[in-house]
Amino acid sequence: MRNSSRGAVDPFIVMDVMEAARAAEEAGRHIIHMEVGQPGTGAPPAALARLGAAMKTDPLGYSVALGLPALRARIARLYAEWYGVELDPGRVVVTAGASGAFLLAFTAFFDAGDRVGLGVPCYPSYRQILRALDVVPVEIATTMAARMQPVPGDVAAHRLDGLIVASPANPTGTMLDRSGMAALAGACAEAGAAFLSDEIYHGLDYGQRAVSALQVTDEVCVINSFSKYFSMTGWRVGWLVVPEAEVRRIERLAQNMFICPPHASQVLALHAMDEPEVLEGYRAVYAENRRLMLEGLPKAGFPRFAPPDGAFYVYVDVSEHTDDSRAFAAEILERAGVAVTPGLDFDPAGGHRWLRLSYARATADIAEGLDRLRRFMAARA
Amino acid sequence: MRNSSRGAVDPFIVMDVMEAARAAEEAGRHIIHMEVGQPGTGAPPAALARLGAAMKTDPLGYSVALGLPALRARIARLYAEWYGVELDPGRVVVTAGASGAFLLAFTAFFDAGDRVGLGVPCYPSYRQILRALDVVPVEIATTMAARMQPVPGDVAAHRLDGLIVASPANPTGTMLDRSGMAALAGACAEAGAAFLSDEIYHGLDYGQRAVSALQVTDEVCVINSFSKYFSMTGWRVGWLVVPEAEVRRIERLAQNMFICPPHASQVLALHAMDEPEVLEGYRAVYAENRRLMLEGLPKAGFPRFAPPDGAFYVYVDVSEHTDDSRAFAAEILERAGVAVTPGLDFDPAGGHRWLRLSYARATADIAEGLDRLRRFMAARA
Repeated sequence: MRNSSRGAVDPFIVMDVMEAARAAEEAGRHIIHMEVGQPGTGAPPAALARLGAAMKTDPLGYSVALGLPALRARIARLYAEWYGVELDPGRVVVTAGASGAFLLAFTAFFDAGDRVGLGVPCYPSYRQILRALDVVPVEIATTMAARMQPVPGDVAAHRLDGLIVASPANPTGTMLDRSGMAALAGACAEAGAAFLSDEIYHGLDYGQRAVSALQVTDEVCVINSFSKYFSMTGWRVGWLVVPEAEVRRIERLAQNMFICPPHASQVLALHAMDEPEVLEGYRAVYAENRRLMLEGLPKAGFPRFAPPDGAFYVYVDVSEHTDDSRAFAAEILERAGVAVTPGLDFDPAGGHRWLRLSYARATADIAEGLDRLRRFMAARA
Repeated sequence: MRNSSRGAVDPFIVMDVMEAARAAEEAGRHIIHMEVGQPGTGAPPAALARLGAAMKTDPLGYSVALGLPALRARIARLYAEWYGVELDPGRVVVTAGASGAFLLAFTAFFDAGDRVGLGVPCYPSYRQILRALDVVPVEIATTMAARMQPVPGDVAAHRLDGLIVASPANPTGTMLDRSGMAALAGACAEAGAAFLSDEIYHGLDYGQRAVSALQVTDEVCVINSFSKYFSMTGWRVGWLVVPEAEVRRIERLAQNMFICPPHASQVLALHAMDEPEVLEGYRAVYAENRRLMLEGLPKAGFPRFAPPDGAFYVYVDVSEHTDDSRAFAAEILERAGVAVTPGLDFDPAGGHRWLRLSYARATADIAEGLDRLRRFMAARA
């Protein structure tokens, strides 16, 4: 049957790593998973119990398209708790994960042919979803000096119709500070470009709290998710915060494109927000894992990485060891029994010199993984 | 902030009806809901219990993008059970509801500017999602003689790059027979147009079983859902069946656009397929409701409607009573206490002469609704 040109999407190279890791495990080997981008934990247990109870009495049919009013209100309250920002719940749009949020936001803000800037390295699906929607992703080179984030001059220099920033970022973990966020928002406003802030790793910061774009402007589309801090990946629930003037348009789009986000996941998310002690416990594990990584990676021969301010990744410059990160990742899996992600998915041009290592799993696994890397590199030297 | 032109979506007129019904109920009135497109029932109870048990032990993180292998296999088996079709589970793609299936299929098969035919009246979101993706919806007038379905000559006459058929259809409930389905598939193949068959109301047929496009061709993209027959609207899980040659492309798109369908919903769907007695019980209710509708509507003054072969709708020609179905629906809500949907959402050009009445709810409600309609029309005459 005929198909489309925009449906021709690049493969994920990490999928080859995951398949190789699975095959190794099937062959009886023990593999440490530093390639995965999701917590090993599930949703908070009391929230699961409350959803279980709701499932017995409520058919959990379609919700309204913008999401359960109680959840929208509770999300708005999070902005007061975390950032001291008063947010009208009417600006919160519950979505089918951050994925659904991207589809909705990109459609609402961009037409075919529009140019949308991405600081590379970045989450690969930005590029692929934009292309699938016939929007033009514009890859912007970043520097370690600017924490591998775009800078205000990029907006005009690349004639952007929109800019997507992520702080903390995937794969680097770097963050924008308040002045950096404000400067990017200002450059977009000046150029008439849409400003989109991906905040899905918020809550997973280990020094100062990540800055929300809503602290510096209302003229922004914020994307967030219950997948990471709230440990609910498979439930596919996230949210947008949009300017008030855009809510009605986005509601109509959401009605048609999604009908509603998964109802059960919305109920779970609402209750998950009331278990801060569980969630902070998860964060304490990542914080300890991060400490082990910052200590162990240089000892293993990986001293060069982007400032890992947040999320649960370290993006490592391995150019002193290889110029083929894909082959290097395969070698590490084969010889060290550690699955890691080559940088190519995040940066097709420069990623052959980088690896992404995730510390989302149990602390014992991270310690063992670092030990294996150290021994592997010592033997390789 | 700037926004897009393709995000400018028509409002749903039915939303005004639902809001008016809600306001009437808040004011203390009793309203019969014949406007809704979803079952009043929930998912089968044993399946819910099994999901509840799984939630206690499994974090239900991301699944693979194409869906749980066990669910894909079980869906493939449904084609043997229902249609006698042997289907490779590798061709089944689990999706985030039929909504996610449309987004995925339209992106995979159509580029910006492509022309996709829809027989009107039809599900309004086809048109809106196509537009949001910069694809051109081509509205094809249908006739009662052709059961309000497109005919093979439409493909060439409208220079289509694709055709979407729905059988049973929303809002009409009409079905294509095997030869009608084969003729449309053949016309698409001949013209090099993609053939998409929306089968989300399959299982909800009351005479002969609805024909799947897979009974007549493999060169088709079938869309289905667990929302209707399986009574799982709010869980947002559905599926595609695609030609084998398209699976890898669609997998890559799905990885980027959705990551995966909701994991818990996939578990629930898998188990729901093992409760045919519950599901057939639901269908028996619709069958009785339909019998009441076919008997009661003519007596109430609504003798003209499309052949209601399946789904849970009757699409009623009310041109002898009004040429403003929106005002007529408002009058019926106000004076009869019955919420019905004007045809305008489904057919912007001709829908001012039609109403859609749903019989998805409890039989007592349907009987009461018909009685109210009869009394209202008698008083109006």
